[in-house]
Amino acid sequence: MERTFIEQASSLLGQEIKISGWIYHYRAMAKTTFIVLRDCSGTVQIVASPQQLSHLSLKLEDVIEVRGKVRAEPRSKVGFEIDLIELTILNPAASDLPFHSSTDISQIGLETILEHRPLSLRSDLGSDIFKVQAKILEVFRSHLRKKYFTEIVSSKIVGSGTEGGTHLFELKYFERSAYLAQSPQFFKEHGVAGLERVFETGHVYRAEPHATSRHLTEYLSMDLEMGFIKGSEEIIQLEKELLGEIFESLNQEFGETFKKRSGHYLPDMMNAPIWEFEECLERLHSTFQRTDLVDDIDPLGERQLCEIAQKEFSNPTVFVLGYPLSSRPFYTHPRKSSSGVNNGAAQSFDLLFRGLEITTGGQRLHTRKSLEDAIRNRGLEVKNFESHLRMFELGMPPHGGLAIGLERLTAQIMQLSNVREATMYPRDRNRLSP
Amino acid sequence: MERTFIEQASSLLGQEIKISGWIYHYRAMAKTTFIVLRDCSGTVQIVASPQQLSHLSLKLEDVIEVRGKVRAEPRSKVGFEIDLIELTILNPAASDLPFHSSTDISQIGLETILEHRPLSLRSDLGSDIFKVQAKILEVFRSHLRKKYFTEIVSSKIVGSGTEGGTHLFELKYFERSAYLAQSPQFFKEHGVAGLERVFETGHVYRAEPHATSRHLTEYLSMDLEMGFIKGSEEIIQLEKELLGEIFESLNQEFGETFKKRSGHYLPDMMNAPIWEFEECLERLHSTFQRTDLVDDIDPLGERQLCEIAQKEFSNPTVFVLGYPLSSRPFYTHPRKSSSGVNNGAAQSFDLLFRGLEITTGGQRLHTRKSLEDAIRNRGLEVKNFESHLRMFELGMPPHGGLAIGLERLTAQIMQLSNVREATMYPRDRNRLSP
Repeated sequence: MERTFIEQASSLLGQEIKISGWIYHYRAMAKTTFIVLRDCSGTVQIVASPQQLSHLSLKLEDVIEVRGKVRAEPRSKVGFEIDLIELTILNPAASDLPFHSSTDISQIGLETILEHRPLSLRSDLGSDIFKVQAKILEVFRSHLRKKYFTEIVSSKIVGSGTEGGTHLFELKYFERSAYLAQSPQFFKEHGVAGLERVFETGHVYRAEPHATSRHLTEYLSMDLEMGFIKGSEEIIQLEKELLGEIFESLNQEFGETFKKRSGHYLPDMMNAPIWEFEECLERLHSTFQRTDLVDDIDPLGERQLCEIAQKEFSNPTVFVLGYPLSSRPFYTHPRKSSSGVNNGAAQSFDLLFRGLEITTGGQRLHTRKSLEDAIRNRGLEVKNFESHLRMFELGMPPHGGLAIGLERLTAQIMQLSNVREATMYPRDRNRLSP
Repeated sequence: MERTFIEQASSLLGQEIKISGWIYHYRAMAKTTFIVLRDCSGTVQIVASPQQLSHLSLKLEDVIEVRGKVRAEPRSKVGFEIDLIELTILNPAASDLPFHSSTDISQIGLETILEHRPLSLRSDLGSDIFKVQAKILEVFRSHLRKKYFTEIVSSKIVGSGTEGGTHLFELKYFERSAYLAQSPQFFKEHGVAGLERVFETGHVYRAEPHATSRHLTEYLSMDLEMGFIKGSEEIIQLEKELLGEIFESLNQEFGETFKKRSGHYLPDMMNAPIWEFEECLERLHSTFQRTDLVDDIDPLGERQLCEIAQKEFSNPTVFVLGYPLSSRPFYTHPRKSSSGVNNGAAQSFDLLFRGLEITTGGQRLHTRKSLEDAIRNRGLEVKNFESHLRMFELGMPPHGGLAIGLERLTAQIMQLSNVREATMYPRDRNRLSP
């Protein structure tokens, strides 16, 4: 007999079927035993007599196969139950597990969760976190495809760093040294010179010694880059539409989960404010008496800006535009003020969401000459960038793009306190396994 | 004025629009100059008088912006042309390019193509290769999502190798050594224990010193793993349906390209034969008098098997099932023959397509005990696998899966002679940049 997925059994009322999965709940009464079975499509209750199970010592998380008859049951969430005919244990679980898939894992310590990752994935919250993450990836890509973007796959092993070379992981590459890429920035710019609009969803690496709740040494970067832009505003507009569609899909599929966890659906991104960097400093000064910020906004300032936006727009989201050029990578395009003066600002923005930076983006320099000048101004050597610079002679449009950190975005959407909870196997200074 | 994508201009007949892109063709006649402009949505011909362009020295690949009027033109492939009003050069290309986007790059050497990757991406064939590749990724994921698979993202930095430790790239990881993952095998098995059906599209790394036309040190592996299987045949069936949908989509979108390049559409995967390993050796013996093959099939044998399948089924595709267990990784499930005897074969298969192995898959061991025995039988240390083995006590169903090499599949579909042509920035023993 072929196996049926639980979700599909609802159309097989009265029939005998075979289902498989994990024991999610187990309740033995005097005359009846109730087993809730979980598979990748859903859960269903199985009803058995104690005699049918007396030869088995069933326990939570056991992997079982069930032959049974589908019976309509209006009190069930799925509308049916299964009357047991025969149950087989395919592979028992250990009896000393520290938690179960029916446990609320928000009450379990992070180390225990990570050391038992499969079990946490099988829980409601664990499964939601990673299904939300998968949905973000899905809609990120499908939204961009509709707008003529082509997915690219670029190398993560590079001969030198993109931005001068700090915090790089070094690798033995046969007889040479190589590094893990910190960003696909150069490659996606080459992609623009070829295909005009490209995106990539791939890992990037930062050998940062920080042990904070928001840093990983390896994370998934959702990158896009597009040609023929006039400035950062077009990229911000695209990100609003992109996150708008992602949030809308997530609200549809996981809205009840969001309501339960935080009382809110995800906000409408179209009304997120865009504030110039200087305006942000002024707002932080007038609302929170911050006088210590000069050329960057610290994590506290990011949280405070989102608080202000929440009050004014009911949306804890801020695009900060026009960071000081000196605090951005050499390839960043300068930004003229509304009066046409170049005041040291960059065509560069961050997106803050619920108090955390989840995107950096901006317009890039697009002529070889301007890049060479910028490299020299930073005290770097032009010749070290030759394999990149010559791509700018092949027909390079004005361009820009952005990168969204997938784990951070997932954590902020699910309101998790640590980005590691949204990473299947996080890597940090201390953690290399499993 | 907002920029219009070329594809969308067909609905704006008679109107003035702005378009942007690269000069793909340029033809100056006595009274008229014809420019074909290319953007991410298509190409269109612009018609100008020599006087309008006399102040510019236009050349192929220049990045330009055009203001013009849309005029219906039945002789044009897209049904319209643009009468020039004004043309601006946004960024000129160099005048000494070794080829152009209108060049047939199948006539250009691989080194020249890779050193000018953006330019090759902008050509018809280059663009087709990477759009086919993007489509493969798209349909791989969407097909599996429809079947309850969840996308996962697993770490590429690991504390030790999956299969005992040869051909690993070593990394300085703060004070320790780490390695680049050769496969997400263990992680996707953990994924199965949590979510039952998972897939991943991510890089894997092999420090193989080979310099062949089919090896890369970094490639993109399209991985899937699924629980509750009875054997390899279910995985093969899934792969037939999966590749079936991928090929169907590709035939729809790129069918004319395939016909032009090879005279054939992509084959129907559902009629691809499944041959036991022993049967393959017999067929190679009887058809090609091969007597030298014992426990593996060499690249020549792979090509010969596909030739036989092409003759018998008009399909150059073979699933080879039941490789010798000893030639497969320790976690491979043994295979019983039809008479129920374990004859040293593995529940393991390869997929050969147009003469090249593009998939390895199979059923895996799913109990801790059987894995420990298999590890010891290979002379490996059980304790080195502890962080993996304990996941098998959390409720692990019988499971299996497969991995498809994206670059190889792309190369075989496009009938390229070297997998590097289907890799934006290939990495091999000698190549680390760009």
